[in-house]
Amino acid sequence: MLLLRRVSFLLPSPSFPRAPLAKPLPLLLLLLHPPRTPAPTARPLASMAAPAAPAGGTAAMSRDAFRAAVTNTLERRLFFVPSFKIYGGVAGLYDYGPPGCAVKANVLAFWRQHFVLEEGMLEVDCPCVTPEVVLKASGHVDKFTDLMVKDEKTGNCYRADHLLKDFCKDKLEKDHTLSPEQTEEYNKILAILDDLSAEQLGSKIREYGIVAPDTKNPLSDPYPFNLMFQTSIGPSGLSSGYMRPETAQGIFVNFKDLYYYNGNKLPFAAAQIGQAFRNEISPRQGLLRVREFTLAEIEHFVDPEDKSHPKFGDVSDLEFLMFPREDQMAGRSAKRLKIGNAVSEGTVNNETLGYFIGRVYLFLTQLGIDKDRLRFRQHLPNEMAHYAADCWDAEIECSYGWIECVGIADRSAYDLRAHSDKSGEKLEAHEKFAEPREVEKLVITPSKKELGLAFKGNQRMVLEALEAMGETEALDMKAALESNGEVEFKVCTLGKDVTIKKSMVSINIEKKKEHQRKFTPSVIEPSFGIGRIIYCLFEHCFYQRPGKTEDEQLNVFGFPPLVAPIKCTVFPLVKLEKFEVVAKKISKALTAAGISHIIDMTGNTIGKRYARTDEIGVPLAITVDNTTSVTVRDRDSKDQIRVEVDEVASVVKEVTDGQSTWADIMWRYPAHTASAVDDEEAEP
Amino acid sequence: MLLLRRVSFLLPSPSFPRAPLAKPLPLLLLLLHPPRTPAPTARPLASMAAPAAPAGGTAAMSRDAFRAAVTNTLERRLFFVPSFKIYGGVAGLYDYGPPGCAVKANVLAFWRQHFVLEEGMLEVDCPCVTPEVVLKASGHVDKFTDLMVKDEKTGNCYRADHLLKDFCKDKLEKDHTLSPEQTEEYNKILAILDDLSAEQLGSKIREYGIVAPDTKNPLSDPYPFNLMFQTSIGPSGLSSGYMRPETAQGIFVNFKDLYYYNGNKLPFAAAQIGQAFRNEISPRQGLLRVREFTLAEIEHFVDPEDKSHPKFGDVSDLEFLMFPREDQMAGRSAKRLKIGNAVSEGTVNNETLGYFIGRVYLFLTQLGIDKDRLRFRQHLPNEMAHYAADCWDAEIECSYGWIECVGIADRSAYDLRAHSDKSGEKLEAHEKFAEPREVEKLVITPSKKELGLAFKGNQRMVLEALEAMGETEALDMKAALESNGEVEFKVCTLGKDVTIKKSMVSINIEKKKEHQRKFTPSVIEPSFGIGRIIYCLFEHCFYQRPGKTEDEQLNVFGFPPLVAPIKCTVFPLVKLEKFEVVAKKISKALTAAGISHIIDMTGNTIGKRYARTDEIGVPLAITVDNTTSVTVRDRDSKDQIRVEVDEVASVVKEVTDGQSTWADIMWRYPAHTASAVDDEEAEP
Repeated sequence: MLLLRRVSFLLPSPSFPRAPLAKPLPLLLLLLHPPRTPAPTARPLASMAAPAAPAGGTAAMSRDAFRAAVTNTLERRLFFVPSFKIYGGVAGLYDYGPPGCAVKANVLAFWRQHFVLEEGMLEVDCPCVTPEVVLKASGHVDKFTDLMVKDEKTGNCYRADHLLKDFCKDKLEKDHTLSPEQTEEYNKILAILDDLSAEQLGSKIREYGIVAPDTKNPLSDPYPFNLMFQTSIGPSGLSSGYMRPETAQGIFVNFKDLYYYNGNKLPFAAAQIGQAFRNEISPRQGLLRVREFTLAEIEHFVDPEDKSHPKFGDVSDLEFLMFPREDQMAGRSAKRLKIGNAVSEGTVNNETLGYFIGRVYLFLTQLGIDKDRLRFRQHLPNEMAHYAADCWDAEIECSYGWIECVGIADRSAYDLRAHSDKSGEKLEAHEKFAEPREVEKLVITPSKKELGLAFKGNQRMVLEALEAMGETEALDMKAALESNGEVEFKVCTLGKDVTIKKSMVSINIEKKKEHQRKFTPSVIEPSFGIGRIIYCLFEHCFYQRPGKTEDEQLNVFGFPPLVAPIKCTVFPLVKLEKFEVVAKKISKALTAAGISHIIDMTGNTIGKRYARTDEIGVPLAITVDNTTSVTVRDRDSKDQIRVEVDEVASVVKEVTDGQSTWADIMWRYPAHTASAVDDEEAEP
Repeated sequence: MLLLRRVSFLLPSPSFPRAPLAKPLPLLLLLLHPPRTPAPTARPLASMAAPAAPAGGTAAMSRDAFRAAVTNTLERRLFFVPSFKIYGGVAGLYDYGPPGCAVKANVLAFWRQHFVLEEGMLEVDCPCVTPEVVLKASGHVDKFTDLMVKDEKTGNCYRADHLLKDFCKDKLEKDHTLSPEQTEEYNKILAILDDLSAEQLGSKIREYGIVAPDTKNPLSDPYPFNLMFQTSIGPSGLSSGYMRPETAQGIFVNFKDLYYYNGNKLPFAAAQIGQAFRNEISPRQGLLRVREFTLAEIEHFVDPEDKSHPKFGDVSDLEFLMFPREDQMAGRSAKRLKIGNAVSEGTVNNETLGYFIGRVYLFLTQLGIDKDRLRFRQHLPNEMAHYAADCWDAEIECSYGWIECVGIADRSAYDLRAHSDKSGEKLEAHEKFAEPREVEKLVITPSKKELGLAFKGNQRMVLEALEAMGETEALDMKAALESNGEVEFKVCTLGKDVTIKKSMVSINIEKKKEHQRKFTPSVIEPSFGIGRIIYCLFEHCFYQRPGKTEDEQLNVFGFPPLVAPIKCTVFPLVKLEKFEVVAKKISKALTAAGISHIIDMTGNTIGKRYARTDEIGVPLAITVDNTTSVTVRDRDSKDQIRVEVDEVASVVKEVTDGQSTWADIMWRYPAHTASAVDDEEAEP
């Protein structure tokens, strides 16, 4: 039970078999390795392609102050806002405003390019509304739960583990009269919090006298609350449905068609981007734990007997932070490993899993995630479901700690088997042998005549039980019959043992020729929480630099051009007809080149206009200060070059498409010396 | 009431104020103008950019046979499949398989380019889960309904209007004993079907003895069924919510932030792409009426006093099929109009509405919609909500008739006012005048002393009622007081009339200087049903051509490269190591150029491989029949040219990016003469 229950720290339900987005590292491990002192510091990029090491102005900020600065900028510039704000909002629901929406579209477009197109995956798009039977088969209806307690008077709901956790942390932080035994007890509870059953949680809540935090009223016993949004399909009210809690099931139920589409060949991967829904009891952690979110999921179907990957060589030399379970359990830190070595040494279970870990690393770092705040952490044996072969989470460090943003799991044949059993539709693959193969096969041949004589009306039940024996059981019986001539045999359908004699059954190993094998494919599942990745990206790209006055700090989102919501701005230096004509000409050329940009014709100083667009992460600014050539400024270095008007759109395209870096471009064009109207004029 | 009730033929609810996706033309009009005999015929494109006129092999097909051929191809090639098929499926829910998903992604990417980027719109992304208060304000909770009847024994549900419609059509088609009066009656009912109230529908159902079609059991009276999927937000069960029936409300509730984001300036447009949900009573019409679908909506906010559009000149010369309400009512046909003339002559209410009609035309035809089967139909006066200024639907003709795929409505200030009233948050814009303006203003000054003496405890109610008078009412009172000295005045809060004397109130028109005006913006809303557009596109692009044998018809989807799910295939002519090396080299170059493609290394004949990829609409095929140069074949003309291996990726990119047409390319490269292994080898 413990084995299954420990999955809970990643999952709403203690015994729930799937691996959705997770809570941070379990406290036991956190206690062994407290998270690094927050390193979310200023990170002015040396070039726009390669993030430099953390350094600079915000280094001294506390974790909370840093988060407040980021969140404030994000909300003020409409990257996101709480949904339905004019009606007071709804906890756990957020809107992406224009720049946030553009970042999301860029992240998803890159995901599609990096995974679906480059790997030739089969993308599908299934509805969010899902009938109950599908989620019954997957286990969500029964087990996708969190333990909840209710205020006995007001009916307010709380997560039971949250209340116990808050109580213990509060005691440890604020109560200076604790005995060493009490301190140890509270620490122990924090460490095993996710292992506690409803009964154990309830008894601790009673023992400590924990009451409802808002009213001090007594609390109910903990009971499971299903996290799916329930609804009814069709008008009759009889057909129950749910908003899907993940996109994966839509792929599994289509396995047969997708396998056919792929020419009945393995391996192949299917992918889906879409909304998923979880009716959290009490959402915390802002954008990291929400009730509706975008998932991007891959199900790579593979022969369980051959998990090699033809392109593994493309990633095998990549080296990054990995945190194998042995190191976690021995109290060591994450370490840099080559993924090639991690696979060949058996740390990572197989090549395909390793290939996806490498591809996820490339995906995240190319988006702008700091490679020093990204690690791949292996699940501990007791975190994994019993059927899983191996699981690794891509965890990104942000002000909330290490956050699971991508789960990469080898789920073996679990999901396909579950839907096969429930639907009665065979979800399996077959391999035709080039040459027929000789295999040894167990053949059990009951003698109907002897069984009939001995068991009369019970004959059928005994016969079926004999035929259903597994290999070991049958061979044991064979040995027993050969030595003793008879053996006691339990027939479940009769509820008792019967005596089987040698004459009643023959058990033999026979050699047979087989022309093909049938099997349920294994599935390797990389699952991306897009909103979490984007939030971590916001934190990793954010930095501040000094403004005009001593106190003033200017906010910058140092997005790589790939994800920047707007690639370029066009500013006429001063309000002059001739500059506006040039600005519009450049804008037209940028539109034709497919580059998202804005023209700012306001009379604000150039410094102020730079500051405003640095804050939404625009990589390049074009200032029209002349009718033949213009100034192009790089956001992070603030370097400026002079480029001919006719050439400027293609220069911007070169940098924002990633064909050249700013450093490459700098070599080719004359530098522009910042004048009085430039950066330093930024106003508060 | 009729005015409102006629909206029903477009809407689930007779009086529902918004304009979602629609049913086809009302029967009254259909009877006046029966839809054109189905023209969904073979349409081999002369060049890939410009669709040619209908012609060819499928011309003689019936509407149903044509639809069956398209749908069969779509399902067989996994463009879409019924969702959750292994569990028996759910009516009205479909999955897009790999090619369908790619088409959808291409359509949405082009929508984003054509509208969001080119028009500088503010894109937002709001949740599907929506609290009740928002949809109460919008009117959906009360009025987003269809009339339903239940089988009184089994509880099966039916749409009341569907049953009556089926009954009348059946009578007209099959009962040859009908009297002229009966024929007239049934025809009349079909014409006014959408105007019938619940009572009228019920009485007709009883009069005709209509019973449940599946069981012949009696039916309940018709009653309204709300089409939203209901759910509960949070664990308490007390907070009701719905899956949004449209994306627009998410934009309206964010108006204030978006207006600020736009520098407090009008006009601006916000846009949203996302899932919407309607719990249809009994979905019919395959992909055209589904329970979950993707909408792309634009809300363009504009000063109601100035609906000009600066870029109207860019579209004003476009000429296309329009169907103004006068022509519909006079029994005439749709006609070709220049949108510039339609606006200047007042047929289309204003420039901004006209601009969007033009942009929608460009969007649809560039996707591959046949311009001869696309028309813009104006709503009849009784189809429009009372507040709407003007509405036009982009209707596309397919085998189901003319289908509304885009609604383009000037909804005046309705939506912002509704949310302003409900939330108490002012959703308005302001215009600062360059010079203060003198305006005439009504000033009502009650005398508290006189009112107190006359009405004592009721003074406050009378005073508030006086202050709340509208302009006309106040001026009438002023006139009455001046001529009679007193007037009877109804005070609603008292529930009675009181006598107001001249001394109790002074009413004057005063001149005031104003420095700004505040107003609720009008909103012009183009709303795109993406799934409907895609289905019509499938029909418009589909054609058949003769195969190898006499009976065989080969299916082709003549998608423009813009929407084609895969842009190019690579076929080694025969299984030779050297050809496979070249094929892989070309594939690498295509990937680097961002071109989606597949390699087919199977041993099938080239003709069979061409046929298979024509069927999923791949525009170009590269056959590797040499190690230095290869054959490139155009899907529609089947023309072939020879191109050097190193050049081929850039040639494909040129055509699929739309920089050149196939015709342009043909001039530059030598033609390749089809050999025995080519097209004609297609096998059944």
